[in-house]
Amino acid sequence: MNGHISYEYAGYLRTEKYDKEPPRRKELIVNCEKPFNAETRPDLLPRSFYVPNDLFFVRNHAPVPVLRSEEEFRLRVEGIVAYPLLLSLQDLKTKFRKHTVTAVLQCAGNRRTEMSRIKPIQGVPWLHGAAGNAVWSGALLKDVLMAAGVYPNKAEHVEFEGADLPPEEENRSGYLASIPLKKALDEDQEVLLAYEMNGEILSRDHGYPLRVIVPGFVGARSVKWLSRIICKMDSSEGFFMTKDYKYLPSSMDFGNVDWSSTPPIMNLSVQCAICDPLPDTKLSQGPYKVRGYALTGKGDHIMRVELSVNGSKDWQEAKLIKGEKIANREIPKRITAGLKDWSWVLWELVVDIKPPMVIMARAIDSACNTQPEVPLWNLRGVMNNSWHKVNILPLTSAL
Amino acid sequence: MNGHISYEYAGYLRTEKYDKEPPRRKELIVNCEKPFNAETRPDLLPRSFYVPNDLFFVRNHAPVPVLRSEEEFRLRVEGIVAYPLLLSLQDLKTKFRKHTVTAVLQCAGNRRTEMSRIKPIQGVPWLHGAAGNAVWSGALLKDVLMAAGVYPNKAEHVEFEGADLPPEEENRSGYLASIPLKKALDEDQEVLLAYEMNGEILSRDHGYPLRVIVPGFVGARSVKWLSRIICKMDSSEGFFMTKDYKYLPSSMDFGNVDWSSTPPIMNLSVQCAICDPLPDTKLSQGPYKVRGYALTGKGDHIMRVELSVNGSKDWQEAKLIKGEKIANREIPKRITAGLKDWSWVLWELVVDIKPPMVIMARAIDSACNTQPEVPLWNLRGVMNNSWHKVNILPLTSAL
Repeated sequence: MNGHISYEYAGYLRTEKYDKEPPRRKELIVNCEKPFNAETRPDLLPRSFYVPNDLFFVRNHAPVPVLRSEEEFRLRVEGIVAYPLLLSLQDLKTKFRKHTVTAVLQCAGNRRTEMSRIKPIQGVPWLHGAAGNAVWSGALLKDVLMAAGVYPNKAEHVEFEGADLPPEEENRSGYLASIPLKKALDEDQEVLLAYEMNGEILSRDHGYPLRVIVPGFVGARSVKWLSRIICKMDSSEGFFMTKDYKYLPSSMDFGNVDWSSTPPIMNLSVQCAICDPLPDTKLSQGPYKVRGYALTGKGDHIMRVELSVNGSKDWQEAKLIKGEKIANREIPKRITAGLKDWSWVLWELVVDIKPPMVIMARAIDSACNTQPEVPLWNLRGVMNNSWHKVNILPLTSAL
Repeated sequence: MNGHISYEYAGYLRTEKYDKEPPRRKELIVNCEKPFNAETRPDLLPRSFYVPNDLFFVRNHAPVPVLRSEEEFRLRVEGIVAYPLLLSLQDLKTKFRKHTVTAVLQCAGNRRTEMSRIKPIQGVPWLHGAAGNAVWSGALLKDVLMAAGVYPNKAEHVEFEGADLPPEEENRSGYLASIPLKKALDEDQEVLLAYEMNGEILSRDHGYPLRVIVPGFVGARSVKWLSRIICKMDSSEGFFMTKDYKYLPSSMDFGNVDWSSTPPIMNLSVQCAICDPLPDTKLSQGPYKVRGYALTGKGDHIMRVELSVNGSKDWQEAKLIKGEKIANREIPKRITAGLKDWSWVLWELVVDIKPPMVIMARAIDSACNTQPEVPLWNLRGVMNNSWHKVNILPLTSAL
């Protein structure tokens, strides 16, 4: 199979130009045009438990691939398996049970802009809108790997290849990333080959016609435009596993970076952001309903979100909203039963606004992990989960 | 089975007095005599990867139970199971495969003394010596539950009863705690019914002849003097699940506490402590090898330990020592393969001592979780995992 161009085999045109990009909503905050990277305006996020598909953050590394036709699409499953598979979209929809999971995706670089105030960082300058919750449907990766006869004692990793061609990729393969086979074969982890997002066909920006959803992991492992699955002994050697998406020590910069010192980021850490009001909003004195999201990895739950309006002296508990339910003051049974939850929570709290002031937020998850006060700067500017601080300015009278 | 006194049935004498306590090492720091609670002097901890049995921290809630004879010991397994079991120690040793796991235990109240400086807290005043790493051997709980024919679709929790009689327990049962059945039945979680610690028979202070070891959970769930296992629908209603060992909001004190608002603590969060030098040690200027431990929950790994000697302006990476191996600058394959590790890491770093000064330490785990700078105060004083800070004083000349 070496030398085979999997994106052509999978039914994609070779696209290295940006003249076939899909239409996009003007409401997105565009952080980079080519490749297209855009986030949801943060104040729109807490308006619904599921972020609408066309407002969901878009993280692309290359032009959006063009599928020749849906009929031509093929997914290859190969590597350390007894029965390599070649599956059409129809196969995936009819030969495997359909599974649905609500899961938050977060770009590892979410909130990079705040971190870059400590020391400059290259990379897409995300605010805090590079996270979103959605309902995903598709075939369980586990079922597909079982059908391919994966050898769990021989393979240890599952590599995904996307049909996009990121320029950073030295070997000109598609986008590559892998996850541990243990995660893939654990049904409770609900790793999906998804063909639906919020009940609709995937849009081109979100991986049409097929993408991976790895609940609890950073978005970089939920490979879009999935064209190939390879069961392997070792984790992927793709650029985005070995030379990016690592949480390097703060002592490393481009002069002394040792990429091999640090494992690729996989799990999400506990996170929290204030979405409304936006930073530097001008407000008058009085009560204001502050709203935001919180999330964590490993299928854990957000136990608590706290806000401070007096410089971290006192912290008040926000109301947690999970779907339609308010979760505070009742312990969901699924928490104590050890069941996993991959979704974010929304939260709200009415606070007294006295500008100028700073609103601070932090979360605590069910494993009792919480957030550091300041970002731990790192070269790739990833995994900023420091307390979220929003500056509020006084209304100036328009004389 | 109601009304049955399980500690007598299991072969224990009823002990409510402290006249049959075992002998103890003088090197332990005793925080409470009755019940006996003692921690390892922190500077002894990093001297060996496994803490010697008689120096391992002891957390008792009552007099140490007295077993009438090893032959009379019986473990009952009952509740929502097809075949209730009554097992002798010999049964456990011969009818089930022996499994060995290296796991750290940490009392949820470890480092309570530091937290109580913010606002007073009742409870055993632990320094940072209420944690220890050991090798545990015994039968996998999973195997025993399978032999009892547990119904995983009916039961959701496994309750453990110890033969001690904590005075807080209103119903005069033994010590009670439960874990989710999901955790118990997952072989990767390695939940053990342990009869050996570091290759020796369990000592009385550590649960002779049988205790539970729940890797990754706070010590309070690793029930000692195990006499009964009950498979249930709901989590245990024992005192130490419902009215203690909860990470309450900082707004709650004994006047307004709502125990039902917060789930019982289960998983350990990321933690780190400086063991050598001890706080307020007098040192002369010059290089000093600082040593300590770090640990985390969920089978995650410690990715990094950082020290600051200039008030958190700069952070240097410590060397991680796992067993005999130094782990920095090589990514253990088990990390990337998603295998679990329940053990602590030891670490060391030579720093320049210029008293008076403060040495600070913090850890980052493989899920990118790190520690808050200051403790999140809570009524029970649990889960303090703030940056560890050790004050160093100048040597005063002895004139």
